[in-house]
Amino acid sequence: MSVSRLFIEADLAAGVEVALDEAQAHYLRHVMRREEGASLLLFNGRDGEWKAVLSLRGRKAAVAVVEGRTRIQAEEPDVWLCFAPVKRARIDFIVEKATELGVSLLQPVLTQHTAVERVNVDRLRANAIEAAEQTERLSVPEVRRPVELGRLIDQWPAGRRLLMCDETGGGPPIAGALAALDSAARTAPWAIVIGPEGGFAQAELAALRRMTDVTPVGLGPRILRADTAALAALACWQAVLGDWREPTPRLSGDYRTARSAR
Amino acid sequence: MSVSRLFIEADLAAGVEVALDEAQAHYLRHVMRREEGASLLLFNGRDGEWKAVLSLRGRKAAVAVVEGRTRIQAEEPDVWLCFAPVKRARIDFIVEKATELGVSLLQPVLTQHTAVERVNVDRLRANAIEAAEQTERLSVPEVRRPVELGRLIDQWPAGRRLLMCDETGGGPPIAGALAALDSAARTAPWAIVIGPEGGFAQAELAALRRMTDVTPVGLGPRILRADTAALAALACWQAVLGDWREPTPRLSGDYRTARSAR
Repeated sequence: MSVSRLFIEADLAAGVEVALDEAQAHYLRHVMRREEGASLLLFNGRDGEWKAVLSLRGRKAAVAVVEGRTRIQAEEPDVWLCFAPVKRARIDFIVEKATELGVSLLQPVLTQHTAVERVNVDRLRANAIEAAEQTERLSVPEVRRPVELGRLIDQWPAGRRLLMCDETGGGPPIAGALAALDSAARTAPWAIVIGPEGGFAQAELAALRRMTDVTPVGLGPRILRADTAALAALACWQAVLGDWREPTPRLSGDYRTARSAR
Repeated sequence: MSVSRLFIEADLAAGVEVALDEAQAHYLRHVMRREEGASLLLFNGRDGEWKAVLSLRGRKAAVAVVEGRTRIQAEEPDVWLCFAPVKRARIDFIVEKATELGVSLLQPVLTQHTAVERVNVDRLRANAIEAAEQTERLSVPEVRRPVELGRLIDQWPAGRRLLMCDETGGGPPIAGALAALDSAARTAPWAIVIGPEGGFAQAELAALRRMTDVTPVGLGPRILRADTAALAALACWQAVLGDWREPTPRLSGDYRTARSAR
């Protein structure tokens, strides 16, 4: 049986007893049918990953009793994804995939051609937590409330570089543009900025291009949906500048089936 | 109003009248509510893209009268995606995204740890056509019937290189591995091979590694779902070896909203 893996807010250390929230307790007791003493893995984005055992309390509640650390918290790339909200299935998909691909922060951005303006931030946060839990990530990306593009530009943090992907923008090829960056740029914090389905308006494109430290790129001759462009750009960024540059550890053949439920 | 874009099997040339199939006629007449003389764009994967006008026949049927060519058929990268079938929403997603990312052929592969064995090939073909229609692609990838991994290996076409992505395999970083290839490898036909959710079995990994022209790669320290790994690998392949190496054309700001319905 696979081991359930949970994101929690509390500090983690050997011997600590962590209260599980109502949804987590319900999931473990009634969906996964876990019993007293079942093994768990916990992470909080700060203290690494810890083995714990389930302890039932009353008819509905549960706590996790923390035992030993299984993984050390590693430093992760600082790369934001700024994207225009799209309809429900596709925005859920962006959050899930970007979390797996190691994004550090998700920023919905409202533009002139943004078709969808209402964003359920709580649902997106729940999706990000679930994706982190299921794919062995040790942190959960921050999900911010939607912001107008103009305001995002005005408040842009100094030193954070932009990788600007716009289907209408005629940018240079992404692999070459990333490979040509100097070492200061390669080690800076980054943000990937993706236009809405209708593309950025001309004034928006101009405002983005006026920013310092912006790298416009193209993603080939086919028109990509906004969600596809976001993930493709993030994968290329990780491969060329991010933590995909390190060799991955060799895992035992049944590592994934044994550890995580899918 | 946006212009409907349709994939058809027939040859395309100026003045030709193309019969639309029942589903296409229904979609245009009753879903999109197109009327006599409405503009269409047609492509067949061979003759480029053509402007046409709709002509209604009787109460249900319709034909397209072809006018002039709007785009020349361009050569596309020859890159297959060999992937283990996953459950419905995720396999539909793989087909849609891989089509946008320019895959030439989709090959479902049955492995020891493949959880899903039934694949609705007709539905996958319909998804590939829809993705090509909506994202300006001039061709539709071939979708093959599922095949056992052993048989796929036995019948592997000479000279087609493999990019092997396996979460448990400890491969070298993808960007470096692709950049280090010699020019013969860079211009060869390729296939991206993705393991199932449970990973390849040890014997399968060994059989894949014994093939000539195999390049094992890793996709970073986080465990990716099989669908995420497929798209990330394809994006990196296009960026480093495929047609994303060419600058993209600059399009007018309202190009996408004017041309395609989403």
